[in-house]
Amino acid sequence: MYYEVEQKFPVDDLAGVAERMEALGATIGEAQVEVDLYFAHPVRDFAETDEALRIRRKGQKHFITYKGPKIDRTTKTRREIDLPLPAEAGTFEAWRGMLEALGFSPVGEVRKSRRKAHITWQDRDVECSLDEVDRVGTFVELELIVDDKQLDAARTCIGSLAEELGLFASERRSYLELLLGRT
Amino acid sequence: MYYEVEQKFPVDDLAGVAERMEALGATIGEAQVEVDLYFAHPVRDFAETDEALRIRRKGQKHFITYKGPKIDRTTKTRREIDLPLPAEAGTFEAWRGMLEALGFSPVGEVRKSRRKAHITWQDRDVECSLDEVDRVGTFVELELIVDDKQLDAARTCIGSLAEELGLFASERRSYLELLLGRT
Repeated sequence: MYYEVEQKFPVDDLAGVAERMEALGATIGEAQVEVDLYFAHPVRDFAETDEALRIRRKGQKHFITYKGPKIDRTTKTRREIDLPLPAEAGTFEAWRGMLEALGFSPVGEVRKSRRKAHITWQDRDVECSLDEVDRVGTFVELELIVDDKQLDAARTCIGSLAEELGLFASERRSYLELLLGRT
Repeated sequence: MYYEVEQKFPVDDLAGVAERMEALGATIGEAQVEVDLYFAHPVRDFAETDEALRIRRKGQKHFITYKGPKIDRTTKTRREIDLPLPAEAGTFEAWRGMLEALGFSPVGEVRKSRRKAHITWQDRDVECSLDEVDRVGTFVELELIVDDKQLDAARTCIGSLAEELGLFASERRSYLELLLGRT
């Protein structure tokens, strides 16, 4: 089973962080708009169980993602199942219809402009996202996908890179939670 | 909204029906194995609500299908949402994992060898399936997908074609219901 080890930091000076990433050898990608539609489960209260289900549109690409409960208190480590959907016009609306027929209901749409970068740190390829999130703010996310044997090493790696980049005051809440004003 | 108008008939002599279809101008396709894994909903009793959710593997192709309750007593008319999934090895198992994480649980696997044919009847393209279903039997299905304005005409068309092909004693139960011995 694979886990997402992730930390997210609010950032005032996104350009400054991008410069520090470039100094570490990263190439910052083009900005891409991502639209995430989140759903409530027919009976489980995802806010309570700390799970999430969303469909994402990124240009013509589409994905469906389930996130399981966070399994520690510092990072956002959790089980993640991320599956591609067909890259066709209409996929987003068709899947909204499928999920609604099954009793899931839309709870919020997170829209952001994301630039991606990869930094090799402690022999790992850390995925970095520089995010400008509509109605929420600007953030940097650092992420590794690892199996359960590498969880501790992955957390150490992320924490060390964050320090190097001058990131602090990590935010455990999701963009959806921030958007909906949950605490 | 689109509906599936379908009738299914138990058939002893599948070769005889195939001949009658060919006499009407149909070309019978190659046999293809279809594996359908059906799921129970986390709270709705699909046997009670007359709905269904399944994932299908057909060679490298994969689909996910939701079927709503039947809306009449004679044919198997119902709402259907049928969406393609990526044609990749591993898709079937990955989707089983996704659905299980969301609280759906597998209830039965229907495996059949299906040959398809199309017959133009009353100006409509009727999809015909000649099915040999493991542990269930041999059947012919006649199907049209239409919008709600064409439901009556579609039912008339299917009934008339069935008569022409010598099909009778239609079966309303699904292959899954027949497999599980539900009445």
